[in-house]
Amino acid sequence: MEGVDHLADERNRAEFDVDDMKIVWAGSRHAFEVSDRISRLVASDPFFRKDHRGVLSRKELFKNTLRKAVHAWKRIIELRLSEEEAGRLRFFMDEPCFVDLHWGMFVPAIKGQGTEEQQKKWLSLANRMQIIGCYAQTELGHGSNVQGLETTATFDPKTDEFVMHSPTLTSAKWWPGGLGKISTHAVVYARLITDGEDYGIHGFIVQLRSLDDHSPLPGITVGDIGTKFGNGAYNSMDNGFLMFDHVRIPRDQMLMRLSKVTRDGKYVPSDVPRQLVYGTMVFVRQTIVADASSALSRAVCIATRYSAVRRQFGSQNGGLETQVIDYKTQQNRLFPLLASAYAFRFVGEWLKWLYMDVTQRLQANDFSTLPEAHACTAGLKSLTTSATADGIEECRKLCGGHGYLFCSGLPELFAVYVPACTYEGDNVVLLLQVARFLMKTVAQLGSGKAPVGTTAYMGRAEHLMQCRSAAQRAEDWLKPSVVLEAFEARSLRMAVACATNLSKYENPEQGFAELSADLVEVAVAHCQLIVVSKFIEKLEQEIPGGKGVKKQLENLCYVYALHLLHKHLGDFLTTSSISPEQASLASDQLRSLFSLVRPNAVSLVDSFNYTDHYLGSVLGRYDGNVYPKLFEEAWKDPLNDSVVPDGYHEYIRPLLKQQLRTARL
Amino acid sequence: MEGVDHLADERNRAEFDVDDMKIVWAGSRHAFEVSDRISRLVASDPFFRKDHRGVLSRKELFKNTLRKAVHAWKRIIELRLSEEEAGRLRFFMDEPCFVDLHWGMFVPAIKGQGTEEQQKKWLSLANRMQIIGCYAQTELGHGSNVQGLETTATFDPKTDEFVMHSPTLTSAKWWPGGLGKISTHAVVYARLITDGEDYGIHGFIVQLRSLDDHSPLPGITVGDIGTKFGNGAYNSMDNGFLMFDHVRIPRDQMLMRLSKVTRDGKYVPSDVPRQLVYGTMVFVRQTIVADASSALSRAVCIATRYSAVRRQFGSQNGGLETQVIDYKTQQNRLFPLLASAYAFRFVGEWLKWLYMDVTQRLQANDFSTLPEAHACTAGLKSLTTSATADGIEECRKLCGGHGYLFCSGLPELFAVYVPACTYEGDNVVLLLQVARFLMKTVAQLGSGKAPVGTTAYMGRAEHLMQCRSAAQRAEDWLKPSVVLEAFEARSLRMAVACATNLSKYENPEQGFAELSADLVEVAVAHCQLIVVSKFIEKLEQEIPGGKGVKKQLENLCYVYALHLLHKHLGDFLTTSSISPEQASLASDQLRSLFSLVRPNAVSLVDSFNYTDHYLGSVLGRYDGNVYPKLFEEAWKDPLNDSVVPDGYHEYIRPLLKQQLRTARL
Repeated sequence: MEGVDHLADERNRAEFDVDDMKIVWAGSRHAFEVSDRISRLVASDPFFRKDHRGVLSRKELFKNTLRKAVHAWKRIIELRLSEEEAGRLRFFMDEPCFVDLHWGMFVPAIKGQGTEEQQKKWLSLANRMQIIGCYAQTELGHGSNVQGLETTATFDPKTDEFVMHSPTLTSAKWWPGGLGKISTHAVVYARLITDGEDYGIHGFIVQLRSLDDHSPLPGITVGDIGTKFGNGAYNSMDNGFLMFDHVRIPRDQMLMRLSKVTRDGKYVPSDVPRQLVYGTMVFVRQTIVADASSALSRAVCIATRYSAVRRQFGSQNGGLETQVIDYKTQQNRLFPLLASAYAFRFVGEWLKWLYMDVTQRLQANDFSTLPEAHACTAGLKSLTTSATADGIEECRKLCGGHGYLFCSGLPELFAVYVPACTYEGDNVVLLLQVARFLMKTVAQLGSGKAPVGTTAYMGRAEHLMQCRSAAQRAEDWLKPSVVLEAFEARSLRMAVACATNLSKYENPEQGFAELSADLVEVAVAHCQLIVVSKFIEKLEQEIPGGKGVKKQLENLCYVYALHLLHKHLGDFLTTSSISPEQASLASDQLRSLFSLVRPNAVSLVDSFNYTDHYLGSVLGRYDGNVYPKLFEEAWKDPLNDSVVPDGYHEYIRPLLKQQLRTARL
Repeated sequence: MEGVDHLADERNRAEFDVDDMKIVWAGSRHAFEVSDRISRLVASDPFFRKDHRGVLSRKELFKNTLRKAVHAWKRIIELRLSEEEAGRLRFFMDEPCFVDLHWGMFVPAIKGQGTEEQQKKWLSLANRMQIIGCYAQTELGHGSNVQGLETTATFDPKTDEFVMHSPTLTSAKWWPGGLGKISTHAVVYARLITDGEDYGIHGFIVQLRSLDDHSPLPGITVGDIGTKFGNGAYNSMDNGFLMFDHVRIPRDQMLMRLSKVTRDGKYVPSDVPRQLVYGTMVFVRQTIVADASSALSRAVCIATRYSAVRRQFGSQNGGLETQVIDYKTQQNRLFPLLASAYAFRFVGEWLKWLYMDVTQRLQANDFSTLPEAHACTAGLKSLTTSATADGIEECRKLCGGHGYLFCSGLPELFAVYVPACTYEGDNVVLLLQVARFLMKTVAQLGSGKAPVGTTAYMGRAEHLMQCRSAAQRAEDWLKPSVVLEAFEARSLRMAVACATNLSKYENPEQGFAELSADLVEVAVAHCQLIVVSKFIEKLEQEIPGGKGVKKQLENLCYVYALHLLHKHLGDFLTTSSISPEQASLASDQLRSLFSLVRPNAVSLVDSFNYTDHYLGSVLGRYDGNVYPKLFEEAWKDPLNDSVVPDGYHEYIRPLLKQQLRTARL
């Protein structure tokens, strides 16, 4: 880092070893080393420049992204990067792009649902990018409800082919990334119809474009769905639409691992357990939780550094004004988000373990933990993405007016991030799934079937329904047992209350619909408990860096828990999980924790180890040299190419000279 | 409206007269008539087209906006529009533009702070747009803290001039709209220095650009501060920077209504009361509250109509799926926002009255209500803009994936709206001002000085500190007295509790800083009470349209109040303003209200009387014909100009053909 470090004073105040915390954040020394090396590689390569995204037209932006993506692939090959390293390179490239879907959805779909033969054929092409694939599931009229998809794949035994067809306007595939302009192939989800019978949604590999000249194949209408939120953001991605007019594909392009259609048109389910699909969902959602911690930590890093740079009010005798980060109102909004970034990081890490655990069990034909794991990942996906989307915008506001500038990085980060609340399961729909699982769990209490995993606490219902919080002094709110019990009691009591209300309805489905807003709150309470408990578990593990690092994590853990307690105080009080007096003690403790976090704040965001390139924010610069750089960025705007703006002579001059009547507008 | 009305069924279900509600929403028949006529005028004029904003480059967008603005002015003159009509035309043009600042800040600043002579000279130029002005207050390093501005205006008695100077980088003016490229003049705020003494911040009229060729005058550095949030949004505005290098202006360009500098450099305050400045703030903030209801109602209109069009899940026997608006989770998020739009509309209407009241009092030298009016408008500005910004984004999420498309209108609406949380007083800073006023009010209770206006309820402290809510059945939550008392008790008790905590600090300022997060919550509670009480007052007035219209407004009023009660339940319970059982009854009542709102929802947003042009949303179209129009919009995207995208030959083909090594990237 060249030049003066305007944040040196802040860094000198840290009470822990930042290098150790970097390892904790990364998850391991190895993970840190790879991320560190690859992020610097990307930052130092002018091909990966991204500061001009905000002023490029859609076409320029899109073309520029193609160039970057292909350059990235070239570098991956030249440097013989491992799969892990290649993944990090794409991550730090930090630009939504068709390759995300190729590697993130197309290849995994074939791996998960293709037979060995199919995998052999298609993956060898896909792995070398001789074909480029996307994942065509959602339709213009069908997002959340996958079972309602309208596209058909009708088997024609005469030719041994499937006929792919879009029977209505609303059946057009709509949204798939990479589909609009680039993909040569797609995994298409369609209703399988054979012998006059509809067997529901299945996946098919369909070639979309000629490998010779890239033109769409006969019967295929395909294009880009248009501009999206933000200046750059997802506009570098060709989210597309796709319609089939009786397009024929060979029978063996149906993905046949879970079920197949025989030569004579018989539908035959395989003996591979269908639950495997849930395993894949656990995997995908685990990566979404990890992404949430990345996005939130980035926003928090920007807001924290700029809050230390920025001064406002409080000048005495003409001296410096007060650093914005010293205001309690700023801390009260910023530090819980800092704590959330860490909390989501650790729960994401735990989800990785959960995925491995589930996978091993599936291989041993043990499906016992699957429903719980599925509910848990659905809920955490919802919780972390909603909190992150809100948190990014809050960080933008915490930067005052300048946060509204493109060069603050925050508008883009927000625009890129918010779709995560909708894709891979709308957040509210997912919470209702969690709630359904919790209601089932509550109903089975006392049946002898003990709740497992993250619902295990419900097995202690007898205690949790009547316990009283032991918090008597503010410091009691730093005890894991006190905090956990309050969150467990709140969650269980809300679940039980909801179950009781549900039981008043004759028709359970009607009751579920009627009380769905309450059920969503039950699910949120349960998921927050998971995050809190996994953070506490993390503190119980061995942590490099000794006491200094651990102390910081403890502070953040309790900031996270106690800010939730305050935010959802109504829950805790209506369930009598705590008393108003105990709530007041918790607030006192939270305020004290803010003072402990304050001197470490800048170092806690330095621990994310983000390069200035990846952060992409003038306000969040490592060296804190914000104001001269804001000027530099401003001068680059195309409007500053000329002193007198384009349009002056046609419009402004006639206006000022009162010659509008004769002016040609 | 041509073609089939896909929402006709919804409209037939309405239980009130939409035309009557349109009058209520507009505020009067006259206001309705003007808005209706002008909005159609704008919608039918192809010059005012705005659907292509998302794909224009910054320069194209900016030039296009100049064209529109000047065309608008031409039409205003040709049609001899009144001031009111001209204002509506700019409003429905719906594009941030330099004229907003000219009319909204430059002209009012001269009116408010200029002497009669100055007004005569400058307003005659400004009113004909022979000069174009902006309002140059905030600086690169100084936003909220106006007293900390660094620009200097030093009187030079030798030449009878002020010397305008920017002594530091951070003193550069930064953000003023219209400054970057267009304004010929500015009202500049600077520290007035004469005879070696600093008299603080004053306003000066400074010419920036030549009226001959538009080039910046000597000593002036000016330009655009760069791209901002969103595709179009405020990128059509030339927010600018400005630095002075010893720029000289005649002494009589200091705005001298409140104080002046004499020929020999003496600083002389006038006998015009300085409180007049607060009157102006009340005016500006009243318009911001009105704008909040416009922006929120627009988002709600889009989300409501699309929620009625969109279907998802729940199909039985292959029939239609369920309309999304029928889900309680959707209602639980959407209807409180619909109610908020109405609530903000009515409180905005009341603020107009308050401004007139304050103005009349000021003219009679009665300053007694000014502090209360000032606190009240500051708080309502904060409350309504924060809720609106969040509400727009919530509406976007309520539209599922398609809300992320530019053509949904919601991303732009959000990007254009969010600065309202920061400008004209950062929302948190404003709430702290409110809190300070409330703490003062509490301290004076019992002193014999009765609290006035919106704090009058605090005068009933004795009752409110010990009363118990009378709610015994769900229906009791439809009684004005029950709702008001709960909100009053909550607000007062929180204020008193905070005052008690403050009194524990030896240094009051330190206490205020330490407890600032709590103080913000006190202010929010107070402001929410204001909005609820003004809505209830509205119901007590005569309302056109008879029972039908009134019934709807009652429903919305209690939806607004009860959703707040649920959202801030912790406040109500810790203060014992209501019991957990009463809270549960309120939730039951809220659910029932949703069912009452449901059949009227589409008609309640039709009552805003927005044209499809103004809404600017494919999802919110009046006729509900969403899906074919989404396709139409998609085809217009520049990426669809060609089937094979620009960049294919350079990047994608070499990739697919495995010829990267030899390709020129």
